[in-house]
Amino acid sequence: MKFDLCAKLHESNPLVHCITNYVTVNDCANILLASGSSPIMADEPEEAAEMTAICSGLVLNIGTLNARTIPAMLSAGKKAHELGHPVLLDPVGAGATRLRTDTAIRILEEVRPDVIRGNISEIKTLALGSGTTRGVDAAEADKVTEENLDPVVAWAKGLAEKTNAVIVITGAIDIAADSKKAYIIRNGHPMMASITGSGCMLSAYMGAAICAKADNKTEACAQCLCAMGVAGERAYAKLQKMDGGNSTYRDLLIDEVYKMTDAVLVQEAKYEVR
Amino acid sequence: MKFDLCAKLHESNPLVHCITNYVTVNDCANILLASGSSPIMADEPEEAAEMTAICSGLVLNIGTLNARTIPAMLSAGKKAHELGHPVLLDPVGAGATRLRTDTAIRILEEVRPDVIRGNISEIKTLALGSGTTRGVDAAEADKVTEENLDPVVAWAKGLAEKTNAVIVITGAIDIAADSKKAYIIRNGHPMMASITGSGCMLSAYMGAAICAKADNKTEACAQCLCAMGVAGERAYAKLQKMDGGNSTYRDLLIDEVYKMTDAVLVQEAKYEVR
Amino acid sequence: MKFDLCAKLHESNPLVHCITNYVTVNDCANILLASGSSPIMADEPEEAAEMTAICSGLVLNIGTLNARTIPAMLSAGKKAHELGHPVLLDPVGAGATRLRTDTAIRILEEVRPDVIRGNISEIKTLALGSGTTRGVDAAEADKVTEENLDPVVAWAKGLAEKTNAVIVITGAIDIAADSKKAYIIRNGHPMMASITGSGCMLSAYMGAAICAKADNKTEACAQCLCAMGVAGERAYAKLQKMDGGNSTYRDLLIDEVYKMTDAVLVQEAKYEVR
Repeated sequence: MKFDLCAKLHESNPLVHCITNYVTVNDCANILLASGSSPIMADEPEEAAEMTAICSGLVLNIGTLNARTIPAMLSAGKKAHELGHPVLLDPVGAGATRLRTDTAIRILEEVRPDVIRGNISEIKTLALGSGTTRGVDAAEADKVTEENLDPVVAWAKGLAEKTNAVIVITGAIDIAADSKKAYIIRNGHPMMASITGSGCMLSAYMGAAICAKADNKTEACAQCLCAMGVAGERAYAKLQKMDGGNSTYRDLLIDEVYKMTDAVLVQEAKYEVR
Repeated sequence: MKFDLCAKLHESNPLVHCITNYVTVNDCANILLASGSSPIMADEPEEAAEMTAICSGLVLNIGTLNARTIPAMLSAGKKAHELGHPVLLDPVGAGATRLRTDTAIRILEEVRPDVIRGNISEIKTLALGSGTTRGVDAAEADKVTEENLDPVVAWAKGLAEKTNAVIVITGAIDIAADSKKAYIIRNGHPMMASITGSGCMLSAYMGAAICAKADNKTEACAQCLCAMGVAGERAYAKLQKMDGGNSTYRDLLIDEVYKMTDAVLVQEAKYEVR
Repeated sequence: MKFDLCAKLHESNPLVHCITNYVTVNDCANILLASGSSPIMADEPEEAAEMTAICSGLVLNIGTLNARTIPAMLSAGKKAHELGHPVLLDPVGAGATRLRTDTAIRILEEVRPDVIRGNISEIKTLALGSGTTRGVDAAEADKVTEENLDPVVAWAKGLAEKTNAVIVITGAIDIAADSKKAYIIRNGHPMMASITGSGCMLSAYMGAAICAKADNKTEACAQCLCAMGVAGERAYAKLQKMDGGNSTYRDLLIDEVYKMTDAVLVQEAKYEVR
């Protein structure tokens, strides 16, 4: 894999429309800016489709979905799909409540996103129509390990074929799979789970990545996973020198995305193809 | 008082449902993670009760209440009460507008929270049904001082008896009172008033504390007040070496909660019982 | 121009009501606290007018406007105008969608704000009723340069006369114009564009400034532009020593507003009058 995501993001500066939760929205906007892209957040149904039309891509994150934002997601999603803009779905908390599961499935069916990114429990919920999500974290029984990696990868490829989307499953080991090929990424740091929004930020970043590398979205997702993971490792190394905690870590993580280059990824990315 | 809150939070890792304002929600999520617990934010009436059912406790914060979130708070609050989950009410700005006062009183009556945490003006408003709150800050005339401490403590105990809730009044001096016993805490730093959300963060943290120490909620609140206050002092000491301002202070405050241990509290907590 | 904004803000500690977007609301609250003023966010139509009545001024920011917050903005705006409270409008993204353009114009006509602050594309949209905004950033063709500065200043003065508002146009060069006089400010740093909300934060800060210096709002805006720009420069100098990125820069920027004094502005402000 030739690392070119960082260069392509800075060259193309994609404008990414995010309909996302209010918990981590500021971090999502800042990580998009850090990556070389630009954010726009707009979730009113009356303007969602019109706004997405002037953007390059769309990120739908159901983290704090509500009766007003669900129609906005569907409206923007359909318009983006119609215009050929890349769309990413982050089904935050799918499986935790009926509303989340139903909404995620409805977006999947009506919008047909190009990429679906979640933890293993959320992705399983989407595939099965029900789930065991513990709030917004993956259930212990679902976790991807070196032992169950092969069957999970095979299953992800099958889901990618069925949905015609790149399936991105994140956790200690990350997977980006299309129907034929899966990238396995082993970057990242456990400290990333100690801040809110590392998943949401990754989804925003990845939404930009699939705009910048629209001709190869699987690789775009894989490179983005490497970049986020390496940023997490570098931020942790920096944090150690500062005696900081999770809030400082959040800033350092975004900072490291800001400083990320393809040359760093060539050196530090840990991935394989299965 | 035997300090065991930090250990208990990290052991039990409670999942805390917050229906809270969008101003400080990210900080609330990060302080919950810092404390060893996990946050979930969900404020759509359609899913609020279902979401709270899979959590350990509930925090209701009316900082940016609206026509959609008020029913969500009532619905989740009643479900949590029914399931025996600890519920904390933060009546942000009660007394400032009729809607806030009425909503806080309605939650008090219909949900019967286990803990009510606010500044003295907000708590007075709840007790009297009207108030003198200046926006979200306490009115000067209301402030708790060493001089009026005894009558305020007696009054808080009476309100605790009447509401069957632990009454937590925060300011330069903090009070956590049930009908029989009140803890007076003298930790903290004036710099905490220079950032938005120090009260909201405390409420989120305390919502986790009463999950982790559900058998003694008054002590849980008192230990949480000590922990937040000590974190504020330590963050200030660190800030002095950095020549920073209020935004850096916010990060340092959450960082210090992340690093907090019961051993530190044994050394640095300043409290008495009245 | 005698710099007295910092002193006046700390003396008068204005309470500023913000109906603003959820992306940058936390930063807006923290910059208000940094400046010596106090924030209150409240966007429910039922309480918006009542809340604004107990405040000193009002900031209306349409960054994530929706069907619920638009009536809140109009209601609070009219009440503030009626009470003689200074009102600032930030028409975020006007020109990007019909809803934003129409809402900004409606606020302009029905509320008659004292100050309108935006980038050149947003302000042009307000003047013309349509625009070329690229999301929330100014269109390249619109940008203010040393070459087109004189006609832009003349045009801004005309718009100020027509709207009876101070017109504040920000970018690499900042302008604060009333019908007779325009301040041109050349402080600031390109890094400010790498974080979300530098415009929103400036609007919040400026909303406080026109409360503290209500007798000369044009000068209040000009001093606020100098203060924000100098803070941006100082934050960048500090960032250089820290090898940080855009997220750390955000904290440093707010920190520098926290530390800002009129004496610093006397030394470092770069402005002229045309």
